[in-house]
Amino acid sequence: MRIARYTTGEDPVYGIVEGDPGEEVLHQVAGDPLYVEPVRTGQTHALVDVRLLAPVIPRSKVVGVGKNYADHVAEMGGGQAPTEPALFLKPNTSVVGPMDPVVLPWQSEEVHYEGELAVVIGRLCKDVPEDRVPEVVLGYTCANDVTARDLQRSDLQWARAKGFDTFCPLGPWLVTADELAVDDLALTTRLDGQVVQSGRTSQMIHDVVSVVSHVSEAFTLLPGDVILTGTPSGVGPLQDGQVVEVEVEGIGVLRNPVRDAGEGGAA
Amino acid sequence: MRIARYTTGEDPVYGIVEGDPGEEVLHQVAGDPLYVEPVRTGQTHALVDVRLLAPVIPRSKVVGVGKNYADHVAEMGGGQAPTEPALFLKPNTSVVGPMDPVVLPWQSEEVHYEGELAVVIGRLCKDVPEDRVPEVVLGYTCANDVTARDLQRSDLQWARAKGFDTFCPLGPWLVTADELAVDDLALTTRLDGQVVQSGRTSQMIHDVVSVVSHVSEAFTLLPGDVILTGTPSGVGPLQDGQVVEVEVEGIGVLRNPVRDAGEGGAA
Repeated sequence: MRIARYTTGEDPVYGIVEGDPGEEVLHQVAGDPLYVEPVRTGQTHALVDVRLLAPVIPRSKVVGVGKNYADHVAEMGGGQAPTEPALFLKPNTSVVGPMDPVVLPWQSEEVHYEGELAVVIGRLCKDVPEDRVPEVVLGYTCANDVTARDLQRSDLQWARAKGFDTFCPLGPWLVTADELAVDDLALTTRLDGQVVQSGRTSQMIHDVVSVVSHVSEAFTLLPGDVILTGTPSGVGPLQDGQVVEVEVEGIGVLRNPVRDAGEGGAA
Repeated sequence: MRIARYTTGEDPVYGIVEGDPGEEVLHQVAGDPLYVEPVRTGQTHALVDVRLLAPVIPRSKVVGVGKNYADHVAEMGGGQAPTEPALFLKPNTSVVGPMDPVVLPWQSEEVHYEGELAVVIGRLCKDVPEDRVPEVVLGYTCANDVTARDLQRSDLQWARAKGFDTFCPLGPWLVTADELAVDDLALTTRLDGQVVQSGRTSQMIHDVVSVVSHVSEAFTLLPGDVILTGTPSGVGPLQDGQVVEVEVEGIGVLRNPVRDAGEGGAA
């Protein structure tokens, strides 16, 4: 099942996505599928008539995994791949949805895309053994782990480099875990239509199940928490006016325009 | 005004704290003081009859500042103090309240206390200039930025080292900004009654106003977000069975017992 979060101009609602690419129809459901079984209300919308939103806004956290594809570790000059998943945090204020702009902050001269498979947690959990991970995963979506590469090098920690507003596009929707085997999916990032990253989830150093289990040993996970599973090689800069797309096989395409920040606002 | 969040066995409520140490009375207020002016309901409780909770659970994030007291930079062998506040993130799942145990995770052999002054944000804001910071600060509380020092050294990022469950005690209550000048307050940490940290907020390298402004240039801040302003020298290990206290002059004492984690639980 594909579940989208969207608006027709009023409060966000959820809907089941059906139909082939270009002809998708949204079947609205009652309530939040994180907490209740989705029951159709009878209301439908053509996908083209709604604005998709991030499929989830985490109440708590986005946890990222650094250096989880060997070819990306190599391109970053990163020496040894980590023996355990290397975790970092992105705040929920960095999350945006499909077609929302990625805003290049004035603090950075070098903002990179990083296409990733994202895991959406479905239930409160802690210390989940690998064989029970399927019980806590609601589904998957595409993510762009946008990163200010210069600040990642110069700051002591990656909080700013990976945490600016708009630095975590998610979407276009969530595909429930029962419908998607994630061990060998194509992962493609395109910049203005040109393929710039082309990997497979089978190239992960730590697979999805081991990543989720490891994260849950550090943090209690809440429904709606998101885990980013790392990016393959091919990362590179985003420029004002470009469009960046992250596509994960079996999920869909997450598309975002890129624009420069204006002058700093007021309080 | 001192505002506590507490429970008498039912849902958390808020109350205004009045009275001298040992004789405090809580005057319950309607609603959440983050969003509405506190209006007394008429219900009162003696402090000793309630369980205090963390004065706020951030909907979004706890932002920490590393290396913000010169004497702590020196004890960490940290060389140069950073020219800008060095930011990191703690997840809201790390927040606990007064008397909640700090749980030592099995992943670490060396968990340290770090007593700090915490800023509680009162309104949605971004890019706040220093002269407008007072408009966005609701108040202050005491914090313990508990840190797994060994993982801080060995992990690529500090997400685990500073983000484990229970690693962010806050309390005992919030003191509103109109009643507390924070530029030169005594900050004391005690372990089983012995003073182990004794600093003054005037020793901060980046003061509260510049820290809040800097953080708001990176992240949109939401009501209830918390900023930890750094720890003075004297950090050291916590052991099972100890009691750790963080006292900030004009606020109060945040007291937490320490215990070892049991065996890992199930999902």
